[in-house]
Amino acid sequence: MTQTLEPTTGTEPSAARTRVETWLADFEAALAARDVDRAAGLFATTSFWRDLIAFTWNFTTVENRDGVADLARQTRESTGATNSRITEGEEPEEADGVVTAWFRFETAVGRGSGLLRLNDEGAWTFLTTLDELKGHEENQGTNRPRGVEHGAQKDRVTWRERRTAELEGFGRDREPYVVVIGGGQGGIALGARLRQLGVDHVVVDRHARPGDQWRSRYKSLCLHDPVWYDHLPYLPFPRNWPVFAPKDKIGDWLEMYTRVMEVNYWGSTTAKSATWDDAKKEWTVTVDRDGEEVVLHPKQLVFALGVSGKPNIPSIPGQDVFAGEQHHSSQHPGPDAYKDKRVVVIGSNNSAFDICGALWEIGADVTMVQRSSTHIVKSDSLMEIGLGGLYSEQAVEAGVTTHKADTIFASLPYRIMHEFQIPLYQQMAERDKDFYQRLEESGFRHDWGADGSGLFMKYLRRGSGYYIDVGAADLVADGKIPVKHGQVTELTETGVKLANGEELPADLVVYATGYGSMNGLAADIVGDEIADRVGKVWGLGSDTTKDPGPWEGEQRNMWKPTQQEGLWFHGGNLHQSRYYSLYLALQLKARAEGIPTPVYGLQEVHHTS
Amino acid sequence: MTQTLEPTTGTEPSAARTRVETWLADFEAALAARDVDRAAGLFATTSFWRDLIAFTWNFTTVENRDGVADLARQTRESTGATNSRITEGEEPEEADGVVTAWFRFETAVGRGSGLLRLNDEGAWTFLTTLDELKGHEENQGTNRPRGVEHGAQKDRVTWRERRTAELEGFGRDREPYVVVIGGGQGGIALGARLRQLGVDHVVVDRHARPGDQWRSRYKSLCLHDPVWYDHLPYLPFPRNWPVFAPKDKIGDWLEMYTRVMEVNYWGSTTAKSATWDDAKKEWTVTVDRDGEEVVLHPKQLVFALGVSGKPNIPSIPGQDVFAGEQHHSSQHPGPDAYKDKRVVVIGSNNSAFDICGALWEIGADVTMVQRSSTHIVKSDSLMEIGLGGLYSEQAVEAGVTTHKADTIFASLPYRIMHEFQIPLYQQMAERDKDFYQRLEESGFRHDWGADGSGLFMKYLRRGSGYYIDVGAADLVADGKIPVKHGQVTELTETGVKLANGEELPADLVVYATGYGSMNGLAADIVGDEIADRVGKVWGLGSDTTKDPGPWEGEQRNMWKPTQQEGLWFHGGNLHQSRYYSLYLALQLKARAEGIPTPVYGLQEVHHTS
Repeated sequence: MTQTLEPTTGTEPSAARTRVETWLADFEAALAARDVDRAAGLFATTSFWRDLIAFTWNFTTVENRDGVADLARQTRESTGATNSRITEGEEPEEADGVVTAWFRFETAVGRGSGLLRLNDEGAWTFLTTLDELKGHEENQGTNRPRGVEHGAQKDRVTWRERRTAELEGFGRDREPYVVVIGGGQGGIALGARLRQLGVDHVVVDRHARPGDQWRSRYKSLCLHDPVWYDHLPYLPFPRNWPVFAPKDKIGDWLEMYTRVMEVNYWGSTTAKSATWDDAKKEWTVTVDRDGEEVVLHPKQLVFALGVSGKPNIPSIPGQDVFAGEQHHSSQHPGPDAYKDKRVVVIGSNNSAFDICGALWEIGADVTMVQRSSTHIVKSDSLMEIGLGGLYSEQAVEAGVTTHKADTIFASLPYRIMHEFQIPLYQQMAERDKDFYQRLEESGFRHDWGADGSGLFMKYLRRGSGYYIDVGAADLVADGKIPVKHGQVTELTETGVKLANGEELPADLVVYATGYGSMNGLAADIVGDEIADRVGKVWGLGSDTTKDPGPWEGEQRNMWKPTQQEGLWFHGGNLHQSRYYSLYLALQLKARAEGIPTPVYGLQEVHHTS
Repeated sequence: MTQTLEPTTGTEPSAARTRVETWLADFEAALAARDVDRAAGLFATTSFWRDLIAFTWNFTTVENRDGVADLARQTRESTGATNSRITEGEEPEEADGVVTAWFRFETAVGRGSGLLRLNDEGAWTFLTTLDELKGHEENQGTNRPRGVEHGAQKDRVTWRERRTAELEGFGRDREPYVVVIGGGQGGIALGARLRQLGVDHVVVDRHARPGDQWRSRYKSLCLHDPVWYDHLPYLPFPRNWPVFAPKDKIGDWLEMYTRVMEVNYWGSTTAKSATWDDAKKEWTVTVDRDGEEVVLHPKQLVFALGVSGKPNIPSIPGQDVFAGEQHHSSQHPGPDAYKDKRVVVIGSNNSAFDICGALWEIGADVTMVQRSSTHIVKSDSLMEIGLGGLYSEQAVEAGVTTHKADTIFASLPYRIMHEFQIPLYQQMAERDKDFYQRLEESGFRHDWGADGSGLFMKYLRRGSGYYIDVGAADLVADGKIPVKHGQVTELTETGVKLANGEELPADLVVYATGYGSMNGLAADIVGDEIADRVGKVWGLGSDTTKDPGPWEGEQRNMWKPTQQEGLWFHGGNLHQSRYYSLYLALQLKARAEGIPTPVYGLQEVHHTS
C-alpha cells in the first residue's frame, strides 16, 4: 500500500541500491553464462549461501566461494535466475559496512525471494527461497476461491457433501498423495499448506480432536513463546490473543484452524505400519481409525511428531519394587491427584520445572533431581531481548511482518548463528543477575550452553537442556523446591536412592528424562531398516553435547529430502512449523505435479539415533 | 506504520487541510463556549450531523442548522469535544467542491472519530462516533492480555477452570450484566465485543451449536454478500476465504469464532419469559437450558434475532383440507425429499427464489406464485457496482480497511442515501439489460424500489421485497420455473387455487411469505405491553411500502435506547452486526460502569408492528 509509493521519486538511487542492483544482475548473468567462477567470485571470502529449494530442491547452506562454486556447478543445468530485482518498496539499507536488501527472482518453475547482505568483498550472506510454483499459485486475495457456484445446476453437490466425500473417501474410493502422521501444530500447518496447494492429503493423529495434544497435557501448561512468534500460516491470531496462551486455548485454536482451513484430519487414528514399494514408488500405510483398519497408498509419507521422539525412560534397578506411582513426564496427568503427596521429579529441564511448579502450587511435597546442568532464561527476558527485535508488537508496528521476521531469521547461517546469540544472552545474564546469583546459591547447576549461546542454539542443536522460566525457577532459587544432585541408582519400595546414598521418600516418581530422536518413533511404523537408513533427526552437527559432528549445515532430516525416497520429517515449534511447512509443502506439490526436483547435496547419515 | 511518515514534510499544508483544521477548531470552540448558534452556523443550510453515541448517547441524525442547534443545545451540559484533529496519516481530500476529512476527538468520557464533508457553506455531512471509553480501552495489540500469569501461585486457577466456572456459574453463583437472546452472527459479534469490554454476558440460542442457525437451513444456501462485506469483529476471514461462503462453512466459522473469542454461549437454550422490575432496574429472565430451568437477573436484555420477526403465515381457507405438506420457508428442510414432487412456492423474494432454485436443481416440479413485484439484482453486479468501491479486494489494496469502509457507509445520511444508490442501480440495469428483458418477457413483475434506489434501501426500509440473484432468476426468466400471479384464495385437497381461478396441483406448499417485526418475536418473551411500548423495529419511516412514516432519521429501535429501559435490539447482516455491535456494546459498558449516559432524542413510537 503506502509502502509502494515511491519514496525516492525525484532523487538519485542510493549507492546501496545501485550496488545491490549491480550484484543481482551480475549474479544472474553469471548463472546464465554457466560461469561458476564468476558466480563464486561475487561472494566474500567468508560467505554463506542458504537455499531453501529454489536452486537445490533441498535445504542447503554452502560456505565460501568453493561452496558457492560447487552449488552453482552442480545445479547449473537445471535452474537459473531471471527477473532478479529489489523487492518493490523495500529500500536496501546500509549499516556498519553491510548492505542488506530484499529481492525477488524467478526460476524456470517458480518465483522466489530472498535476503542479501553485501560486505566490502561481495555477498556475505545470501538466502534464496522458492515461494510458489508457476501455474500452481495459491488461491488468495484476488485469486481466492469463489465459493458457491452461481447459476442453477441439476444435482448440485454442496460444499459439505464434497468435504464429507473427500474426508471419508480415503482408502475407499481415493488415495491421498500425502499421509502426515501426527496432527499437532506441525501436521496441521502442513495440512493447511497442502490444502492451499491442492495436494490430496490426510493428517492422522491418535487423539480424538485437533488440539487434544495440548489439552491432554498438565493443566498449568502454557506456550513459553509469545504470540508474535506463534502464528500459524494464513490465519494469524487476532490482536486480542494473549501473549502466552494457555494450553486449552491453543487447543481450541488448533481445532478451529483445522476445520476452517479444511485440513483433512483423521482423529482417533493410529498409524500401525508403513512399507515402501520401490517399484511402485508408493507407501502402504495401515492405520487404525477408531477401531477400523484402513489401508492407504500415498506416494509421500511425512512424520510430524514434534521435536521429540520416544520418551527416554531410564532403566533403574528397583523400578519393579517401588510401591508408588511412576511415569514419564509425557504421561504426567497434572498435579491434581498429588496434593500433600511426596513427589520426586528426575530431570531439570522444561518439563521437570513445569511439573515441579504445578505440583508445588497444589501443595505437593516435591523434590527435583538434577543430573546435569541446565540453562535457564527468564521468559520476559527471552521475549524482550531474544525475540523482541523480530517478534513483538513493536516489530509489527515497525513493519516487520511475521514472514519478514521469519525470513530474517532464516537468513542467518547456522554456522555463525551463535555469534548473534551470545551477546543477547550476555544481556540477559546482566539483566537477571540477581536471579542467577540466587539460583547459584541454591546449589542449582546452571549453564549458558556450550559456547554461551544460550537457549535457541540448544534448541536447534539438541532440543533439550533448558528451561524458559515462567516462575518455577524462582521456587528452586528460593529453596521452596529442593534440588538434589547426581544419578539415581535405585528405586526402593518407598522412594528414590541417589548415587551419594541419599534416599528420597516418594509416592510418585516422574521421569522428566527427555526423548530420543524422531527416527526412533518412526521406526515403530517404518521398521528399523528404514529408520537407520534415514538416521538421526534434528541437530546441526555442532559437536556439542547431544549434537555430535560432523557439521551438517542444516538441521538433520528436517523438511527436506532424506535417504529414504518419499519419507519426510516435519516439526519444531510454532515458528518452524509455520515457516518451513511452506517449503516442505512446495517440495511435495512439485513431486505431485511431476515437476523435476533434482536434489543437490542430499545429506549423508552419520548417526542412526 | 509508513502511513505515519509525514508525506507533507517540507511543503505547505493544503488548502483542504487548513479548512478542516479551522472548522474543527471553530466547532470545538463553539461547543466549549456553549454557543449553540455559532456551532450551528458552521453547518451548511442543508446538512446532516449523524452521531453514534459520542454526543447523544443515541443513534441520531439531525438535519440542517436547526437540528444541529437543537442537538448542541440539549447536550451542551453533558459533553463537548477536545483535542479535535485530523486523523494521523489521512490527508483531507477535495473533489467536486467537497472536502472530505477523517478526524479524531475526545469527549469527557471517551475517544471518538468521524468523517466530515465540507461544502462552500460549511459542514454538509458530519459523522461522529464514540470509539472507546477512557479507562476501559480494549485489550489489543500492545495492551493484549498477558495470558498465563507467570510466577508460582498456590492453588492456581487455570484458564479452562475459570472459563468453565464463568460459563456454568450464571444463574447459580453469578449474574450476567447482559443477556443476549439469539446467537446468530449478531449475538455472537455482540458477545465478542462484550467480552473485549469486560462486560459479564451470556448469549442464549435454541440451537445446540453456534452456526447451527446456518447449518439447519436448506442445503444450497450461501452468503449472498461477498467476503469483504462479511468480516466479524477482531478476527477477519483469512485471505483464502471464498467470496461467497457456503452455509456450512459459515456455520463452522461462527462456531469456532464463538469459542476463540470466548463468547459466553449457551446452546440448546430457549428464552421463556422476561419481566422488568422497575424498582430494581433489573430483568428476571427464565430460560430452558437443555431441559433445565435457569433464572437470570441481568440489567440489560438484548434481542438479537436477526432482521426478521415471526414468520408470516397467511391464513388461507382450505389449509386444513390440503392433503399434502405445507410449511413456512423458515421451516423448509431443503430439496432432498421433493425430487419429482409438485411444489408451489408462494412468494417471490429471496427465500422463494433460493428454495425454487434448489428444488429445480434436484428435479422437483416447482411453480412460483408472485403476489407483488420484486426487485432483483445479479449478485455479481451488486458486488462489483454496489459494493466494490468499499468492499472488495481492490478496495482493500487501496487502503480502504473494513472499518474505514463501514465508516464511510455510516457517514451517508439515510435521508439522502437513496440519491447515492439510484445511479448504481441504473448502472446495473444497463449492465444486465438483456437479463431484465428476458425476465420481463417471462411475465415476472420486477421493480427497482419505490424511487429506483434498489436493493439496499429496500433492505433498510423494509428488509424484504428483493432477491440477490445467484442463479434462480435465470430459471424464471428462461421459463424453467413457471410463475403464476395473484393472491392465493384457497387450498384444495390437491393444490392451490389462485384469484383468477387457476388451480395448481401440489404435493408441497411453501409459504415464502416473509416475517413480521422483531418486537413481535420479543412479545412472546417480554409480553405484549412492553412489545407495544417499544413498537415496530427496523425501517426508516420512509413512507414507502411496508415502511410507514413519519421519518425517523435512523433505523427504528436498532442498536440504541428504546422506550423500555434495559431493552435493546441488535441484528442485521454481517456488516451491520460487525459495525453497530461496537456502539451497542459501548452503551452497555457505559451503563455497567455507571458512566452517565443522558440520551438525546429518544425515539418516539409511531407503530406497534
